[in-house]
Amino acid sequence: MGGDYAPEAAVKGAILAHNELKEKAKLVLIGNQDQIHSICEKSQFDPSLFEIVHTTEVIGMGEHPAKAFSQKPDSSIVVGYNMLMKKEIDGFASAGSTGAMLVGAMYTVKSIPGIIRPSITAAVPSGNEKPIILLDVGINPDCKPDVLYQYAILGSKYAEYVYKIDNPKVGLLNIGEEEEKGNLLTKATYQAMKGTRDFNFIGNIEGHDFFNDDKANVIVCDGFVGNVMLKEAEAFYMLVKKRNMTDEFFEKFNFENYGGTPILGINDVVIIGHGISNDIAIKNMVRHTFDVIEARLIDKIKEAFK
Amino acid sequence: MGGDYAPEAAVKGAILAHNELKEKAKLVLIGNQDQIHSICEKSQFDPSLFEIVHTTEVIGMGEHPAKAFSQKPDSSIVVGYNMLMKKEIDGFASAGSTGAMLVGAMYTVKSIPGIIRPSITAAVPSGNEKPIILLDVGINPDCKPDVLYQYAILGSKYAEYVYKIDNPKVGLLNIGEEEEKGNLLTKATYQAMKGTRDFNFIGNIEGHDFFNDDKANVIVCDGFVGNVMLKEAEAFYMLVKKRNMTDEFFEKFNFENYGGTPILGINDVVIIGHGISNDIAIKNMVRHTFDVIEARLIDKIKEAFK
Repeated sequence: MGGDYAPEAAVKGAILAHNELKEKAKLVLIGNQDQIHSICEKSQFDPSLFEIVHTTEVIGMGEHPAKAFSQKPDSSIVVGYNMLMKKEIDGFASAGSTGAMLVGAMYTVKSIPGIIRPSITAAVPSGNEKPIILLDVGINPDCKPDVLYQYAILGSKYAEYVYKIDNPKVGLLNIGEEEEKGNLLTKATYQAMKGTRDFNFIGNIEGHDFFNDDKANVIVCDGFVGNVMLKEAEAFYMLVKKRNMTDEFFEKFNFENYGGTPILGINDVVIIGHGISNDIAIKNMVRHTFDVIEARLIDKIKEAFK
Repeated sequence: MGGDYAPEAAVKGAILAHNELKEKAKLVLIGNQDQIHSICEKSQFDPSLFEIVHTTEVIGMGEHPAKAFSQKPDSSIVVGYNMLMKKEIDGFASAGSTGAMLVGAMYTVKSIPGIIRPSITAAVPSGNEKPIILLDVGINPDCKPDVLYQYAILGSKYAEYVYKIDNPKVGLLNIGEEEEKGNLLTKATYQAMKGTRDFNFIGNIEGHDFFNDDKANVIVCDGFVGNVMLKEAEAFYMLVKKRNMTDEFFEKFNFENYGGTPILGINDVVIIGHGISNDIAIKNMVRHTFDVIEARLIDKIKEAFK
């Protein structure tokens, strides 16, 4: 029921995902059963190929996340988290209210012991098929050095196991390459990361090193900086699109196709999609959920924080 | 003598600027006289059209700014600041060491009383001929709310008097439009700016509002965020260029042509150019220096802080 084009885009995306994943995955649709059936019918798709869990409530994008999560127990977000807690599903994805998804994660599945703050990421297009992982992109606008240090580990595991990038290079986003450059946060973080064996730290990288994985596969920054940089990339894409410039690489910037990000650092697989997701984006989100489950990412992260 | 292509680009740029400004301005070239003469000769330009001040020392890009400024009294940067102090010139521009230029400003001309921290800006391309002023882009990576508040005034005066933008709209760069969104800095800054009569505050703007002056003419942020956003725009321009996409608008992103930024908040007109400036960029830098002098920007800022 989540996202600006729900439930139509969600159901159509699930159909596309079913056609791609086939018997490799059982897709569970949580939402209004009648609407799901009706969209399936229009798409000439047999709804019995899904498992459908009927819900009666919807959390709107404008609602207060914590209140809505508490007051709407029969919303798809609350029901989804409950199913995840009971291990009835292996992963949970939604393009609905990001706030409610985050609140739900903290109320139910919770952080992995040792993790100070979970994080969400963006997959930034690079010169080749594998993206650059940028984190955090919005959960934590104020970070301490030990939080950024943990993000480096979370991002490395995600890059390594989900995107199959060997020994991913971790760069600290900064305003100069030299060790002594930066703000109070990045200067202290550099000192914490320097010489670490927990990940492959390659030093500071700058804004112009974006979109180029020759430098780093994982870029670490606080959630304020990550958020504005991600949205600036969206602005670029809009400029390119407005000019009808077609280019395979720039098409990767199309956030409408963006499959979503796991909440890294929690005990289960939860994927947050973009609110404006169309059916392709939903398909990609389901596909990404499958990939994260298959990569056993949560187990790998738990091992790293043992 | 400053910049990666000095002195050739500097002298050639000065020649272009002379041809454009003609008798409206007297250009003073500070540097090695023999080299200046030789480049003029090669360009078939009469060097007596310039006033030339011979210097024997050069501050390198890698030198420690404060040390170099103290130890090289006959460098073009030190001589330039001394001439500015003695009112022998009305404005001083250089594409040399940004660090030494900033140190020189603080050692000699100094901040306007009441200004906590001076700032440097970037002129971000917008949908029309007038750019969006982004500040700070690197002097102050850690800011307090009162510093951002002053940046809003400095940016407004610059936009109004130099770029002739009426009642410029000031946006606070943030990670959400709503008042309560942000990090500790932007949340407190919003409260300080709200309802102000010192400038035209239009509220929070986000990363995707970049390059679009429908929202804001002046974007205020700390120097860390401004620096990474500016460099991300450079990265984007490189991507466009690499693909041989030609577009008048994207050409405005070409930082090689960028004319430089005043140090806003000091007692005199000082313009800092980009280190990699070519002759066109130097010409634009001289032209911008002329525009800032002619706009009487320093007087306007002094009045605002009386």
